[in-house]
Amino acid sequence: MRNVILDCDPGHDDAVSIIIAASKQSSLNILGITTVAGNVDVGKNTVNALKVCDLLKLDVPVVKGAERPLVKESEIAPEIHGESGMDGPVLPDPVKVRHEGHAVDFIIDTVKQSDEKVTLVPTGPLTNIALALIKEPSIKDNIEEIVLMGGGTFGNWTPAAEFNIYVDAEAAEVVCKSGIPVTMFGLDVTHQVIADQKVIDRVAQIDNKTAVFVKELLIFFGKMYENHFGFNGGPIHDACTTMYLINPEMFDFKETNVTIETKGEAAYGMTVVDLLRTTGKKKNVKFAVGVNQETFWEQFYHILESFSGK
Amino acid sequence: MRNVILDCDPGHDDAVSIIIAASKQSSLNILGITTVAGNVDVGKNTVNALKVCDLLKLDVPVVKGAERPLVKESEIAPEIHGESGMDGPVLPDPVKVRHEGHAVDFIIDTVKQSDEKVTLVPTGPLTNIALALIKEPSIKDNIEEIVLMGGGTFGNWTPAAEFNIYVDAEAAEVVCKSGIPVTMFGLDVTHQVIADQKVIDRVAQIDNKTAVFVKELLIFFGKMYENHFGFNGGPIHDACTTMYLINPEMFDFKETNVTIETKGEAAYGMTVVDLLRTTGKKKNVKFAVGVNQETFWEQFYHILESFSGK
Amino acid sequence: MRNVILDCDPGHDDAVSIIIAASKQSSLNILGITTVAGNVDVGKNTVNALKVCDLLKLDVPVVKGAERPLVKESEIAPEIHGESGMDGPVLPDPVKVRHEGHAVDFIIDTVKQSDEKVTLVPTGPLTNIALALIKEPSIKDNIEEIVLMGGGTFGNWTPAAEFNIYVDAEAAEVVCKSGIPVTMFGLDVTHQVIADQKVIDRVAQIDNKTAVFVKELLIFFGKMYENHFGFNGGPIHDACTTMYLINPEMFDFKETNVTIETKGEAAYGMTVVDLLRTTGKKKNVKFAVGVNQETFWEQFYHILESFSGK
Amino acid sequence: MRNVILDCDPGHDDAVSIIIAASKQSSLNILGITTVAGNVDVGKNTVNALKVCDLLKLDVPVVKGAERPLVKESEIAPEIHGESGMDGPVLPDPVKVRHEGHAVDFIIDTVKQSDEKVTLVPTGPLTNIALALIKEPSIKDNIEEIVLMGGGTFGNWTPAAEFNIYVDAEAAEVVCKSGIPVTMFGLDVTHQVIADQKVIDRVAQIDNKTAVFVKELLIFFGKMYENHFGFNGGPIHDACTTMYLINPEMFDFKETNVTIETKGEAAYGMTVVDLLRTTGKKKNVKFAVGVNQETFWEQFYHILESFSGK
Repeated sequence: MRNVILDCDPGHDDAVSIIIAASKQSSLNILGITTVAGNVDVGKNTVNALKVCDLLKLDVPVVKGAERPLVKESEIAPEIHGESGMDGPVLPDPVKVRHEGHAVDFIIDTVKQSDEKVTLVPTGPLTNIALALIKEPSIKDNIEEIVLMGGGTFGNWTPAAEFNIYVDAEAAEVVCKSGIPVTMFGLDVTHQVIADQKVIDRVAQIDNKTAVFVKELLIFFGKMYENHFGFNGGPIHDACTTMYLINPEMFDFKETNVTIETKGEAAYGMTVVDLLRTTGKKKNVKFAVGVNQETFWEQFYHILESFSGK
Repeated sequence: MRNVILDCDPGHDDAVSIIIAASKQSSLNILGITTVAGNVDVGKNTVNALKVCDLLKLDVPVVKGAERPLVKESEIAPEIHGESGMDGPVLPDPVKVRHEGHAVDFIIDTVKQSDEKVTLVPTGPLTNIALALIKEPSIKDNIEEIVLMGGGTFGNWTPAAEFNIYVDAEAAEVVCKSGIPVTMFGLDVTHQVIADQKVIDRVAQIDNKTAVFVKELLIFFGKMYENHFGFNGGPIHDACTTMYLINPEMFDFKETNVTIETKGEAAYGMTVVDLLRTTGKKKNVKFAVGVNQETFWEQFYHILESFSGK
Repeated sequence: MRNVILDCDPGHDDAVSIIIAASKQSSLNILGITTVAGNVDVGKNTVNALKVCDLLKLDVPVVKGAERPLVKESEIAPEIHGESGMDGPVLPDPVKVRHEGHAVDFIIDTVKQSDEKVTLVPTGPLTNIALALIKEPSIKDNIEEIVLMGGGTFGNWTPAAEFNIYVDAEAAEVVCKSGIPVTMFGLDVTHQVIADQKVIDRVAQIDNKTAVFVKELLIFFGKMYENHFGFNGGPIHDACTTMYLINPEMFDFKETNVTIETKGEAAYGMTVVDLLRTTGKKKNVKFAVGVNQETFWEQFYHILESFSGK
Repeated sequence: MRNVILDCDPGHDDAVSIIIAASKQSSLNILGITTVAGNVDVGKNTVNALKVCDLLKLDVPVVKGAERPLVKESEIAPEIHGESGMDGPVLPDPVKVRHEGHAVDFIIDTVKQSDEKVTLVPTGPLTNIALALIKEPSIKDNIEEIVLMGGGTFGNWTPAAEFNIYVDAEAAEVVCKSGIPVTMFGLDVTHQVIADQKVIDRVAQIDNKTAVFVKELLIFFGKMYENHFGFNGGPIHDACTTMYLINPEMFDFKETNVTIETKGEAAYGMTVVDLLRTTGKKKNVKFAVGVNQETFWEQFYHILESFSGK
């Protein structure tokens, strides 16, 4: 059982990531879900997280986090995720109530009090994680790994920068320089797991309400990606993190240096990934470069099939 | 009665600032003293704050804050303040115990719970203040003013940057962009209040233990400034903040825009003060440009004379 | 007949580029060859250009250019091109003498005096071109196109920056902002034309001294790329420029905005290519994204076969 | 006899600088006057230089130089110098014809061919000087000193940057890093030589047409400075350079490091002057910190009195 905190901004693919973590196929011990401003504002993201927990009957604390990045002005992406941040499927208003307190303190306290090391799984901007590391640096010693979705050798929000990293590049720099083992799922690999029509059709055959929810998520998300980027489906970026925690073997990695560009203009927010090892800087990130797509989708369908309830 | 939180890194001039705030001449209601990494590490700064409270029999919470800046690596200045951060006078180990919890939460909670607006008085790097504003942006509404020592049109740590701002320039940017009224005492004015031999001689005539402590602070601090910068005494920078809160009339200000240079190299950490109004940017800072030195020192001596105890 | 000036730092692939331009298959009117500090210093690059002209009996002016970049310190790449800048084949010392004057003036004067518009073909750092545009901005009107090798969506000298652009990023910015049509062959396409063993074997069957020279170039260059980057041959980057001028149809392009990152640290020197059109900036570059490799190599062999002399 | 090239953008204070250099009191051997885009465009600046030569019957080559900065977009200051760049006095259209060729080549050729070392005296943006050093680095060996007006520890065009340096900060960086001895007259000293009403009245008593011209320059320039900056007269910045060459004793200097901020935003274009020696960087500039104002103005009046003609 691996202890994890899911730090997210649901978000279509964040929701899928939570579902994977909460599935029977998962051996993850979810200590809590923390939310952060990202795809939409943190209030909406928190409501979405609560709704997903209700759907899954997932009894873990959901804790609201940072409303804004460390240094920059806020930036959100409703053009990808819709007004609610999780447009498409319609879930009832949440019954579950969010846990009191601030996500940053929840992360600090949970990590400090855990007997076993904790793995942080951020799938939104890294504000909460950075704030926790700044406020209480000693928690580093009890963090096993930070498994994050963000970055890549190319961008989607600017030509050089991926959204999660761009939104709070300074927070990303704090994380990358922390000395904690970081496993990074950037666009290089997440663009390999596109939920195209074939995937949607296959999910549509699975007869439980979680799968129905996922199907509707994928339909909406795919349309947004088609309209905005010309893709033939939505890449379920964030799902890579929890899928990796369940089955790391399906991914290929390169251990190298990743440095965040926080000073530049056109390349601001880039994760500069030293794949050719030209910089001589020390390795600080396990950077995902590939995935066995067949295994990924097979596992994905099995996970969805493992849910019950209609 | 004005509510203040003194956020500091004592520090010789921080100690003087606390003494002024705690004097009978002061009408300040000190809600607490919070500490931050700066002149030396936050552990030492906190011990120094406790010692000063013991000396003054000042019964307010002392709360330890941030160990490190937001984004940058830590940097300290023992060459100015000595190993302990307050070398020179020897005070007994503190009897007073620090308040539990983190300075950031103390600031947030105190501001939120205060019936009257609160004035923050940072005399170290702005890490705690920025963290509070990032973690709980809503506290802005109950902050009356941020009265800080930092910056200037020239530097002392680099040619362009003053120490407090340089150490956490990103935090300073958060503060300057917060929309909260900021009153800034930079080197332009603090270098006008140098405790030279004449000042020290005058303080030496005051016969109470607080004045003796201040005299010893000034002797040590003056030597450091003489050795390091060739000054004829130590500028008691931080004292300007609380002196202003007691008697604002003695200072001259220019309301203008101050922007923090967080991208540059040689000028990194500069407070770019638009005195000539060439930028067209909106006024966000009341920047101190002058002080009536006679009034300052007279007030200073009166304050020291108002203490009792030998 | 298209008027061209080849601005280069030969360099193995620069030499191949010249050979293509000088071939019977080419309809290019070479007005001159200008040299620039790049792969090695400009003195060596100039000697190499003269040697190649001797080999080809190419009677065009060879003019020495800039010794150093506009703003940055010089940087060279002997680990890729050897000490001479064109290690591998051994050519006799040049008989041909370089043209007097400076490349910058040669470019300015030649462009100004040409009845037809001139195409500039830089395959090294863009120092000469930028200097010409700064010194005499009016030449823009008589430049048809700048067809350059440089940049890409990823780097080879740093993780984000390609060598030619990195060495003089400020010059590249001047070129990209000039308003002149720019066609850019970056690593995205040049890494598609790797002269692997199969190519070398095929070239080895061609029985003239130019082909022998090329074969030896490719062998050396391939070894360097194998050792340094783990490639299975050397990408003949620069050859794309002249190959395109002879047969543009074999390449695929995307017209978009390219901005040079001149402020950043880890991403300094990057050509930020807006392939997804996320920036809203105006199109200033025709960026090569693909090549028909079969056509490329067929053309390449035909060109080499068209030379005579043993 | 010291050989000088005056590189300028006249410009009221540039004109005064030329007058000083051309006076009988001067032992300077003016090899030529080169012009550069700055206060206004280079065409207007060149006409102004020719007019001043006509007025002075100064028989030296006037050579037009760079139209634009190295990397940045152009920026001019008609709000200070008027539409013509030298508004106020009305001089006849020039009879003198400008020397053919480009200022950059004139500088290079003149320096190379001079038996004695040459001193460059730039009083505008440093574009021509930088271009000459980039195009022909070997001229460094025959340059005795670069005596320039520019920079300071504070700015006038932005809060941090002085106009000449801001307009072409990259050129300034090339000059400061060149290894050539640089003597810099920045705003710290040039704001000490303000031609207030008293100066104008005194000049008005001098009865020759050069003095009349200077008087009219000072009247216009003073009004502009009064309107724009609230000064009580115009600082004749550029005049410091030639005054220094005639009588260096009247100025005080500090030898230190000056680094140009070319990466920052709010502080872009700043000359970061290490007066407190906090950086550890090597001394590359003799930075003017003071002037004996009495001596300056006495010398100034004597110079104006030395001219004849009505």
